[in-house]
Amino acid sequence: MPDLATQPLGVFDSGVGGLTVLAALQRELPHESLLYLGDTARVPYGSKPMDMVRQFARQISHELLRRGVKGIVVACNTASAASLPALADELPVPVWGVIEPGVAAALEVSRSGRIGVLGTVGTIAARVYQDRLERAGATTWGKACPLFVPIVEEGISDSDIAALVADYYLQDRPPLDTVILGCTHYPALTATLRRALGPDVSLVDSADSTAAVVARDLHAMGLAATGPGPGEVRHLVTGDVASYLHTARILGGPLGPAERVELGAFEPSPS
Amino acid sequence: MPDLATQPLGVFDSGVGGLTVLAALQRELPHESLLYLGDTARVPYGSKPMDMVRQFARQISHELLRRGVKGIVVACNTASAASLPALADELPVPVWGVIEPGVAAALEVSRSGRIGVLGTVGTIAARVYQDRLERAGATTWGKACPLFVPIVEEGISDSDIAALVADYYLQDRPPLDTVILGCTHYPALTATLRRALGPDVSLVDSADSTAAVVARDLHAMGLAATGPGPGEVRHLVTGDVASYLHTARILGGPLGPAERVELGAFEPSPS
Repeated sequence: MPDLATQPLGVFDSGVGGLTVLAALQRELPHESLLYLGDTARVPYGSKPMDMVRQFARQISHELLRRGVKGIVVACNTASAASLPALADELPVPVWGVIEPGVAAALEVSRSGRIGVLGTVGTIAARVYQDRLERAGATTWGKACPLFVPIVEEGISDSDIAALVADYYLQDRPPLDTVILGCTHYPALTATLRRALGPDVSLVDSADSTAAVVARDLHAMGLAATGPGPGEVRHLVTGDVASYLHTARILGGPLGPAERVELGAFEPSPS
Repeated sequence: MPDLATQPLGVFDSGVGGLTVLAALQRELPHESLLYLGDTARVPYGSKPMDMVRQFARQISHELLRRGVKGIVVACNTASAASLPALADELPVPVWGVIEPGVAAALEVSRSGRIGVLGTVGTIAARVYQDRLERAGATTWGKACPLFVPIVEEGISDSDIAALVADYYLQDRPPLDTVILGCTHYPALTATLRRALGPDVSLVDSADSTAAVVARDLHAMGLAATGPGPGEVRHLVTGDVASYLHTARILGGPLGPAERVELGAFEPSPS
């Protein structure tokens, strides 16, 4: 039986956004080998029916398992909301999403319990953060920010445009002391959002929160890679590899060898 | 044999953008019944491999044919570039794309032959307009404007944000006398782009140009509906119907009964 600790950790997202989670994982777990799958041929997930996204998550997870991963990080808010906890029950390896760690971090940081959530149209409409926060007693304000992803991908996260758009989305907010970046692209907008929100509001980055939870759990399960060298990072892409690498560079995500992968036809499950 | 002239005209797009073409067709051909298919489950096409988009176009065309359309308008720049003229050769009904009409209109309008093209990343990178214009002797400048689609879908086409983003994309332009709106969403930005470009630059709207060509051809072929009443508009959607209608309303596209359609698994052809 191979030593599980030396096997790579699988990470997937609908596209490039999950690279912020990959970067956070690399900071927390520098010896870990990481296998990232970006489903750029089917991005975005946010506007697709939840049952379709659940099938995508299942299909990608089986592709990663076939390649020997010891665990899977669902580095996508929509896929986390659609597939967890069912995916974790179904798979023979540990599975982490990005939502629970973000919720836990926000509840820990907030003093007043008034928490804002910024995300894609799909994440906000599905109330994936808001419902969990409210069940824990928080008061929430959710705002869909569809311009933020193209602003990040355009490489203008610190521009006048980004500042104006941030003010636009935040203009109607109630008093808040904590804001969750509920989309994996948004950490690139941290400086702009800090300026727009002012010094009294804490920003919770789901990528960082998720990486901390994964690191804690891997160590607890004896599954963490122990080195001595740095882990390898490899990328699988369902769409065009060149444009993936272009955007990956803008996002500052850990780069490495990248290849196209065919996932085959999408077959709805009987469910 | 049914009277072909009374059969509906099929129109499809990767999502809601083609509704500007649908609106232009309705203005040009008020008696025509129109069957629109928005492939919102797989939007956007621009970032997907061309062979995949070609398969999508083929699959959708056969779905529309099965429903009795007398002709098909590919109301999507990416799908037009990927599938024409092959699709026209393959299908038993007339097929129109949005690129050739836009190119022809721009060449007719331009005095200096210096023509700009605004479009999605995919349309600009594939040089679908630029190559055709340059073969006809024009000098071109192409600019990908990925923020324009979410600005239109957010309903802020006439805002300060839209003006600032238009200036940003246009800041490096050379002297031009004509600009093609090479994405079906962009007609919503006409007022903003007119202000940014000044009074000496002509804007060519591919939606209008395409509708004019389709009307001319249908009349020439004896396939145009002659009334007396207005034609019906129906919508088929591969993704979520409610969010489709929400964005359709913002785009001002002709509304009508809308239903979800399943296109089945995507099977790559032997090609």
